[in-house]
Amino acid sequence: MNRKMVFHILGKILIVEAALMVPSVIVGLIYKEKAALAFLVPILALVLIGVLLSVRKPKNREIYARDGFFIVASAWVLMSLFGALPFYLSRGYYEGCQFNSYVDCFFEVVSGFTTTGASVLTEIDILPRCILFWRCFTHWIGGMGVLVFVMAILPLSEERSLYLMRAESPGPIVGKLVPKMKDTARVLYGIYIVMTFLCFILLLIGKMPVYDALCHSFGAAGTGGFNVKTAGVGFYDSAYIEMVIAVFILLFGINFNLYYLILLGNIKEALKSEELRWYLGIVGLSTLTISLNIMKTFKGQSFRYAFFQVATIITTTGFSTTDFNTTFPELSKTVLVLLMLIGACAGSTGGGIKVSRLIILLKSFKKEIKKLMHPRSVTVIKLEGKPIDSSVSYNTIIYFMMYMVIMLVSLLLISVDNFDFTTNSTAVIACFNNIGPGLGAVGPVGSYGGFSAFSKLVLSFDMLFGRLEILPMLVLFTPKAWQKKA
Amino acid sequence: MNRKMVFHILGKILIVEAALMVPSVIVGLIYKEKAALAFLVPILALVLIGVLLSVRKPKNREIYARDGFFIVASAWVLMSLFGALPFYLSRGYYEGCQFNSYVDCFFEVVSGFTTTGASVLTEIDILPRCILFWRCFTHWIGGMGVLVFVMAILPLSEERSLYLMRAESPGPIVGKLVPKMKDTARVLYGIYIVMTFLCFILLLIGKMPVYDALCHSFGAAGTGGFNVKTAGVGFYDSAYIEMVIAVFILLFGINFNLYYLILLGNIKEALKSEELRWYLGIVGLSTLTISLNIMKTFKGQSFRYAFFQVATIITTTGFSTTDFNTTFPELSKTVLVLLMLIGACAGSTGGGIKVSRLIILLKSFKKEIKKLMHPRSVTVIKLEGKPIDSSVSYNTIIYFMMYMVIMLVSLLLISVDNFDFTTNSTAVIACFNNIGPGLGAVGPVGSYGGFSAFSKLVLSFDMLFGRLEILPMLVLFTPKAWQKKA
Repeated sequence: MNRKMVFHILGKILIVEAALMVPSVIVGLIYKEKAALAFLVPILALVLIGVLLSVRKPKNREIYARDGFFIVASAWVLMSLFGALPFYLSRGYYEGCQFNSYVDCFFEVVSGFTTTGASVLTEIDILPRCILFWRCFTHWIGGMGVLVFVMAILPLSEERSLYLMRAESPGPIVGKLVPKMKDTARVLYGIYIVMTFLCFILLLIGKMPVYDALCHSFGAAGTGGFNVKTAGVGFYDSAYIEMVIAVFILLFGINFNLYYLILLGNIKEALKSEELRWYLGIVGLSTLTISLNIMKTFKGQSFRYAFFQVATIITTTGFSTTDFNTTFPELSKTVLVLLMLIGACAGSTGGGIKVSRLIILLKSFKKEIKKLMHPRSVTVIKLEGKPIDSSVSYNTIIYFMMYMVIMLVSLLLISVDNFDFTTNSTAVIACFNNIGPGLGAVGPVGSYGGFSAFSKLVLSFDMLFGRLEILPMLVLFTPKAWQKKA
Repeated sequence: MNRKMVFHILGKILIVEAALMVPSVIVGLIYKEKAALAFLVPILALVLIGVLLSVRKPKNREIYARDGFFIVASAWVLMSLFGALPFYLSRGYYEGCQFNSYVDCFFEVVSGFTTTGASVLTEIDILPRCILFWRCFTHWIGGMGVLVFVMAILPLSEERSLYLMRAESPGPIVGKLVPKMKDTARVLYGIYIVMTFLCFILLLIGKMPVYDALCHSFGAAGTGGFNVKTAGVGFYDSAYIEMVIAVFILLFGINFNLYYLILLGNIKEALKSEELRWYLGIVGLSTLTISLNIMKTFKGQSFRYAFFQVATIITTTGFSTTDFNTTFPELSKTVLVLLMLIGACAGSTGGGIKVSRLIILLKSFKKEIKKLMHPRSVTVIKLEGKPIDSSVSYNTIIYFMMYMVIMLVSLLLISVDNFDFTTNSTAVIACFNNIGPGLGAVGPVGSYGGFSAFSKLVLSFDMLFGRLEILPMLVLFTPKAWQKKA
């Protein structure tokens, strides 16, 4: 490991995080909240440590793939450790605080950065606005990835950027949109900002207050799930607002490359996307199934509730307008659990195993059957019309296997708390896939507050494993990665 | 497909099934039960159809790998369709019958042949003895595999035998013990019979009645789970009997090749087995964890209950001495669910994904991390000290993937019945891995009787998919396999 270079980049990232806390301070000043003071120490600490780490420019600026993984994983952990401080330090500034320990705050901010939306809180309205703003803003930061953001503004070599991008971007294959990675990062962030702004404007038109609209836009853009009301999106009781949010999270769940294609005028090409078609097909089929299944309870409102819930779950956002844990029949709940596992498209802000991985898995499945029937046949798996490398399909299957194994081990670890099987298994699924709410005690009206500190740490790392797609976190836990010469 | 040859072999198998029904008729005659008459029609039908199918010896006796898969899968389905008849036809001969339809009987006999032990019955004592005998005997038949039995007694070419054995034997690699497959089958059945007999004798010494001891030996040998008392093994309330059964099912869960090694005097070699060590390690660790975890409730009896339950679940037998669904804390229950997934050793009568597959999965896992750290390194995965072919590790991972996908689809299908998530998910796990009891409504004192006919069929096929390890059943569902020329 090129330690000097790793420290240098990490230092810059910490300074960026300090800058990202400033908007929350401004919100605190506007609303004249004392809690804004809670940001002072973290900002100073981040700047100080950041400058100390990054002040010396290393001579050897080379980094390898594993360093890229290491930087991304440690950056996310460090950012979470510092990002939890405002929650922790603001505890004295308001009544009824539900953060009982630093671990609670860490869980909450990891849930924010990873755009999970799982919370230890049950009452949300009582928190200061600047703190709730930071909570929602972490979704927006984590959605597109902080490393991608750093790449967009810092001078980094092509190769270094590619390694960082590969480690942070979700999906089986990471493509460059334009020849230079730096420009790719800028294009991505440009699209991201414009879409967030559009969502914000449409929510304002729906008569949502400015502050609420801003926070909801951050949550929707990052496909997170945090918002500013205890009753969630259901608080506004507006079909218009629900539709705006549902449509936008579905849009944020699409591979951003397609938007770039559309920007270039290649709309036809974008609509041909195999992943997009599967994604929309799964959304349509699930909405239909749930609509019919909940018809008895929800009558004429079935489609509204089904569509919102499908959109919010498949994109792993986790907003809710109804307590589906108690109001939905088992078939609908099982459909939602399966959608949790599938997740959104590669290269989007959504989590899960991703639609494109599902396609590759099912095609490998089909290939095996074919091989069984015709042992000498040679089948090439294609995605988006292009043959995919056998190493990609192998890695996809390996990914799926690691994914299952890590989830099962987590299930075992948190079962010590003696919650029921439904709660435990859906808590792990909801955290690992960055969704937020599960079933049972962690359903839409429940919270993760009841788990022990140990279980909260396990679930926090599940969220990080899920958001960074396992490998970077594994590198972080491999002692060899820390050695100077690997 | 060489249809003539396939029909010829299937015909012989049906005749063998008729012969396997005879012991149950004898039991009926001994106890002077009218229900013995229920075997008449099935035996006659089996003989008639069997003779018709097998009377003409086909000229072209060649079969391919896929024909092997096809024969095995269709043989198991056919045997189950006929094997369900005695349950169905005996319904008028006794009071309080709980088989409400032919689907119930089909579910029960599939559960028998696949050595699952899941039942639609809640009261077992009231059934005629000859019917209960058939129910337990199906475990014994299915344990070692009926095709292996047919191979031991019928003249088949080497190649044909290998294809059949590969399709029916559990585990990632199928080895021949002796140069000829026919002799391998005979050695395996020899060991199987001797061990069953030993178990029977030891149970008699524990003062279990002859009939009960015989039925329990069949259940233990096949690592099934059916027995003859509603209260299960707990009925005898004897630590001795529980230990005999626990030790024997653990022995039946070991790869039979090791017994052959011991027969040859190669005890050291056998004890060196990597899979054996992992298997015993997992049993030890799980027993310890559960013993400590249930100490509060079970006091001095903790080890007895923990060891029995671990043995019966990891070997996928499914006997029970306590209703662990209500008496065990969540950690112990989760350990049991994970053991359900792991299962016993390859080449044993136990189900699950098998310990050797787990080893290969974990080693592939480790290999990937190593590759990440040293991209140019070449790691060879070894099992039992021998390097395993990359196709074996690839197939293992593909198997694991198919295994998960089929279980998730089954979960979705049976959720229509609106049972809770714990019941549904553990029902699928318990059936697919051929265990029997799950948690919730399908716990040790529950039954599968409450599911709809559709769900019972789904679960029946899950049992067959699990027992035959997916591929043969997939071939059966592939239209191309039915064509004359593939």
